Amino acid sequence: MKIAVLPGDGIGIEIVAEAVKVLNALDLSFEMESALVGGAAYEAHGHPLPDATLNLAKASDAILFGAVGDWKYDKLDRPLRPEQAILGLRKHLGLFANFRPAICYEQLVGASSLKPELISGLDILIIRELTGDIYFGQPRGRRVATDGHFPGAEEAFDTMRYSRPEIERIARVAFEAARKRNKKVTSVDKANVLETFQFWKDVVTDVHKEYPDVALEHMYVDNAAMQLVKAPKAFDVVVTGNMFGDILSDEASMLTGSIGMLPSASLNSSGQGLYEPSHGSAPDIAGKGIANPLATILSAAMMLRFSLNQEAAAQRIEAAVQKVLAQGLRTPDIHSEGTTKVGTAEMGDAVVKAL
Amino acid sequence: MKIAVLPGDGIGIEIVAEAVKVLNALDLSFEMESALVGGAAYEAHGHPLPDATLNLAKASDAILFGAVGDWKYDKLDRPLRPEQAILGLRKHLGLFANFRPAICYEQLVGASSLKPELISGLDILIIRELTGDIYFGQPRGRRVATDGHFPGAEEAFDTMRYSRPEIERIARVAFEAARKRNKKVTSVDKANVLETFQFWKDVVTDVHKEYPDVALEHMYVDNAAMQLVKAPKAFDVVVTGNMFGDILSDEASMLTGSIGMLPSASLNSSGQGLYEPSHGSAPDIAGKGIANPLATILSAAMMLRFSLNQEAAAQRIEAAVQKVLAQGLRTPDIHSEGTTKVGTAEMGDAVVKAL
Ligand SMILES: CC(C)[C@H](C(=O)O)[C@@H](O)C(=O)O
Ligand SMILES: CC(C)[C@H](C(=O)O)[C@@H](O)C(=O)O
Repeated sequence: MKIAVLPGDGIGIEIVAEAVKVLNALDLSFEMESALVGGAAYEAHGHPLPDATLNLAKASDAILFGAVGDWKYDKLDRPLRPEQAILGLRKHLGLFANFRPAICYEQLVGASSLKPELISGLDILIIRELTGDIYFGQPRGRRVATDGHFPGAEEAFDTMRYSRPEIERIARVAFEAARKRNKKVTSVDKANVLETFQFWKDVVTDVHKEYPDVALEHMYVDNAAMQLVKAPKAFDVVVTGNMFGDILSDEASMLTGSIGMLPSASLNSSGQGLYEPSHGSAPDIAGKGIANPLATILSAAMMLRFSLNQEAAAQRIEAAVQKVLAQGLRTPDIHSEGTTKVGTAEMGDAVVKAL
Repeated sequence: MKIAVLPGDGIGIEIVAEAVKVLNALDLSFEMESALVGGAAYEAHGHPLPDATLNLAKASDAILFGAVGDWKYDKLDRPLRPEQAILGLRKHLGLFANFRPAICYEQLVGASSLKPELISGLDILIIRELTGDIYFGQPRGRRVATDGHFPGAEEAFDTMRYSRPEIERIARVAFEAARKRNKKVTSVDKANVLETFQFWKDVVTDVHKEYPDVALEHMYVDNAAMQLVKAPKAFDVVVTGNMFGDILSDEASMLTGSIGMLPSASLNSSGQGLYEPSHGSAPDIAGKGIANPLATILSAAMMLRFSLNQEAAAQRIEAAVQKVLAQGLRTPDIHSEGTTKVGTAEMGDAVVKAL
């Protein structure tokens, strides 16, 4: 089994180091190989996703990813910016199914913006389609408008699109996931305005016939953005497209108060996956040794479960994380009165010890 | 001065009746003419926006709109569904500038999902572009895919597009509004992925040169969805496109806890405007006399201010609403212990009395 380790930029480097420490402590035999990605790869090789990195990712069973991006790359042409690395990996590896759990850790209830009773015990799973939609749809670009409100004016455009098999496969992923949970799927669309999402709704409804044991509800994206605030616990599995999923999964992560704790997985149809924390590269705190490594450590656990077939090891890591939380250890982002403030490496060490 | 009164469906009928009561109590001279819209118009005339209604709207200085929609129309072809009426009015009247204040009423702090300290005193203004973007962009439809992941498969597609003058005019509206407030504009985009929103960001940056006294920040839409939860008070004016604005403005309204209280205005370049509550038609409580008419009454105040040049009258209404809240009157949606529960008509009467 081979793991590609891509720390990336900012706090990515520090938090991935702790996840690697935890993986090494498991006494499993896998090969790990590191490569540069994002801004770090651009600095060294002039491209955020060099061929060597992409080839390593393709040749691996799983990718452990940190984070990419820094303000200093804002002025680069879009194809050279760090974020292109993650978009390129998703595209070239066909990682169409993005799992983003939004869980509220009991010990962190107080860190949420929401009132404790609304958020305590929250456990929802957002499944975001990750290789289609307006993220990748062609054509796109700039041109002179020939119709619309201002014919003759300069305009920019993008194409939103989904085909039936793309919707079918992500819908199946969602229904399968719901079967192992509370058997409810909320499909989020904007069928009242968009052709693409009327089609989405129709296809999800068709696929649902194969899963009569799972309840399906349809919700408009604007309403979903409201219901997440009003009553997040009413959701179980949420499935949606790439663009709406980007927005709603970030909203949901922040609602939990546990954003420094939330892992994610992006899978393709052969079970190969990329695992990364739900948060970003946080250049403002990079290099200070204060970033929370737990989301990345929990991403490594998801990797063991989904791509490396090591359920027992995944559960060991998750139990160890629960243990350090119960011991009261907290990085600054989740620190509160009565708990013990620790740095990135201390947190990683504590998880290793708790294993 | 002529006002088109379009109550629509569901609670629209009841809440608009109260706003009309309040307008009549002002002793100003304007003509009001009602027409059917949405599902009600479909039932009577086979179309959600009959020509007579559209012509009345065009011939008026302002439109007082209730709400449209009911589950029973879900099975109709899209062009016949109630929502098409509001989309048609926006399009045919060129109502490109949508003002959606997200205010937390001090008396309703407790009704918010958010902790009181995060939300108390909140006063942000979301300015959503309303006639462009993927809502109206052509081409759109269904076809057989010739490229992408599954060539040969059935697919649906839509076009996101913005031209320079469309972005310029909404940016100016935002900077002008910020000048009268806290002089800060947050422009929300997805420039890291979309051509349309890289262009949006570039054009907003250009227009900003005319407003050196206003601070401009750019924020990705996923981050904006998070920051609204984390620290909503950090915003002043938010400007964004039609699709992102749909999602973020609903998220922001729900955060306030005051959603039954929030008005909105949609203006064109000649000051003609459509005024409607931020909430929907709530078919589940329609006809029960328990809907909150205050968002619609406050929309009438916005109408007096923006389209009818009656600032004093607008302020009278707003003060009257504050007064009934201070008296402890509450419709069931905002009722809490220690306040007096009233129905829709009683609330409208109380506002009239407080005038
Ligand atoms: C960095 C960016 C391109 C990316 C996205 O929009 O998908 C990020 O926001 C995410 O959600 O992983
Ligand atoms: C009813 C619907 C078409 C509409 C929209 O998406 O614009 C509504 O959600 C709104 O925000 O006014």
